[in-house]
Amino acid sequence: MITDVIQSFPAKGCNNDLMSYKSNRTSFILAISYTETSTIPGLTVAGANTELLKYTPAADAEYIYYGRCKCIDSIPATPDGKPTPAIISKTALDLSNIPISVVDSGSKIKPILPYVNIDSESGKNILQEQGLELENVVKNYDMGKMIGKELAKINETVIIGESIPGGTTTALGVMQALGIDGYSRVSSSMPDNPNELKNKVVEKALSRSNMRAGDCSNDPFMAIASLGDPLMPTIVGLAEEIVSSGRKIILAGGTQMCCILALLKSLNVRLRDNICIGTTSYIINDKKSDIVGLMNNISDDVPIFYIDLLLENSTKKGLRSYSEGFVKEGAGAGGSSIAAFLNNDNLTREQLLHKIEENYIKTIEEPSLMFTNK
Amino acid sequence: MITDVIQSFPAKGCNNDLMSYKSNRTSFILAISYTETSTIPGLTVAGANTELLKYTPAADAEYIYYGRCKCIDSIPATPDGKPTPAIISKTALDLSNIPISVVDSGSKIKPILPYVNIDSESGKNILQEQGLELENVVKNYDMGKMIGKELAKINETVIIGESIPGGTTTALGVMQALGIDGYSRVSSSMPDNPNELKNKVVEKALSRSNMRAGDCSNDPFMAIASLGDPLMPTIVGLAEEIVSSGRKIILAGGTQMCCILALLKSLNVRLRDNICIGTTSYIINDKKSDIVGLMNNISDDVPIFYIDLLLENSTKKGLRSYSEGFVKEGAGAGGSSIAAFLNNDNLTREQLLHKIEENYIKTIEEPSLMFTNK
Repeated sequence: MITDVIQSFPAKGCNNDLMSYKSNRTSFILAISYTETSTIPGLTVAGANTELLKYTPAADAEYIYYGRCKCIDSIPATPDGKPTPAIISKTALDLSNIPISVVDSGSKIKPILPYVNIDSESGKNILQEQGLELENVVKNYDMGKMIGKELAKINETVIIGESIPGGTTTALGVMQALGIDGYSRVSSSMPDNPNELKNKVVEKALSRSNMRAGDCSNDPFMAIASLGDPLMPTIVGLAEEIVSSGRKIILAGGTQMCCILALLKSLNVRLRDNICIGTTSYIINDKKSDIVGLMNNISDDVPIFYIDLLLENSTKKGLRSYSEGFVKEGAGAGGSSIAAFLNNDNLTREQLLHKIEENYIKTIEEPSLMFTNK
Repeated sequence: MITDVIQSFPAKGCNNDLMSYKSNRTSFILAISYTETSTIPGLTVAGANTELLKYTPAADAEYIYYGRCKCIDSIPATPDGKPTPAIISKTALDLSNIPISVVDSGSKIKPILPYVNIDSESGKNILQEQGLELENVVKNYDMGKMIGKELAKINETVIIGESIPGGTTTALGVMQALGIDGYSRVSSSMPDNPNELKNKVVEKALSRSNMRAGDCSNDPFMAIASLGDPLMPTIVGLAEEIVSSGRKIILAGGTQMCCILALLKSLNVRLRDNICIGTTSYIINDKKSDIVGLMNNISDDVPIFYIDLLLENSTKKGLRSYSEGFVKEGAGAGGSSIAAFLNNDNLTREQLLHKIEENYIKTIEEPSLMFTNK
């Protein structure tokens, strides 16, 4: 039974029916972007190498497309073998034969694959200046709506994942500006979540913007321009269009997706029964963040569905690290895994884990095989 | 009856079943590109203004998306009111609610909308140098295959249209290199088809390439590199992948699409029953070109379906000009009109004409209304 595999935090104001997201007309969108906020030392897992950070979103996109990276020669994992969550997304999407589109919403390095170009700037360091120009917020939002409009013509369900280093900090910033208290509640790819640093960055960014928490509760675009990143308006526009067309959207991610929902709420988009968050149990069970608490503050009509991927049972140390607080989510890993179960009646979590391990072996343990044909 | 509206040249080697292309999982792809070959004086209708030519593909894409152009302020028509065929494509696609994707395969000016970027170079003037690097032929072909692979996961029918100034001349060049005699048989957007000029350009381009007609019959990529344009490998890769996945493709265009078929044949792609040409009667009835003769030389398993859009009955002089040998086809006009009839059981040609005229009035006769909100 799928209800044994996918658990949920139901919401009071909607029907919480996971099966309503099941459709053989499902597409996956990976939105990629970049914010210079990620270069603040200590903020992200790869913070020691800010050059490499620029490659992460493109590398994630390439991995999901090809099962290997093209823009970088290195394998998509930390030196000690903790793989990108894109390995989970790819495995799950392949199992369901779900089509993939990469939307470039301001990445620094462009992926080597056919991607949707919306002519977006990258984001600035919110500690020093506004995240992006207000006119670019509007432009990306409009581009997102256009993408959503075309997707809604043929798709019944759209899964949207993201890859942007530093994204939880800008999400925190925007939520504070909207009046949602996110301090010490956004998640991290490290077990030792640098919450105090994130809080301090956002406090300073608010003060740089001459703003107090909640000042943008009715001005979501100003919240994004001041404290956000270029990914947000694109996803918001896309999600708004899908939901308004009566189609379904799975926001595939952790606390960053709470920020998207807070923005949709601030825009007064009628969400009911057409949108959910799909994530991993590693986000839900994280003691250093609080997605459920955040959601309670934002909305009473959006359920969270989550899946325990059983990675603690993996024979691979790198995959087990997910259950020890590393990585946890990203590149739509949780949402695409949920879709894999929606679209494969007989799939078991053990089978999915086995397939993930196969990809892990191919890419991380035997990478030489991947690069001979490059 | 749809058979009263859509006529055909059936092919001996396939089932010629137009209804097999009917599906509520249909998408439209507009591939746009640019070749400097278009700057050869006298070759294309807008040849007097080579600067403006660079904008045509992006403007066509924008018109299909928005019902107006963004990259240029001018209306999408010649000064005397002959409109871009994109006006027909847009009307037809709107009637069928078919989703649109724009694939940029080397345009000079990028459209202001979300488009698929494959990182393609523009094409060179084949009179002076090779059309594109061989490695870029392979790259675009691979990109086209990747786009096709994702499309085939959810679509049953894909319509592909094109916009590239000078495209019939490069098509002629590639067909000659492949050994298909296209001299004086490719179409033109002008009633006075400059066939002799096109023939001469291609003869010189062959001689510049140290090639005789037919030398590339087994080397389609070399034919494209020497005499073609960057649009061709992208469409070929996309079409090959769609057809090979057992999905259907409508090549929406005139004699340029014969070149695509000649390339697919040279690549030994098994086409049967999954591919057709969809075009207008203005191409079929053109005395200055010969699409049927070309097809007879290329393949016996690809039907041509065509539609008489009754534009000679239009109250608009600009639209009537189509039946007088101007424009005739482009931007997928014929193929998307055919799809409109496949997807709307009760549609009549009079209704389609009326809708086209409505868009004509909005954009060409009352353009001021379009630009107030820009």
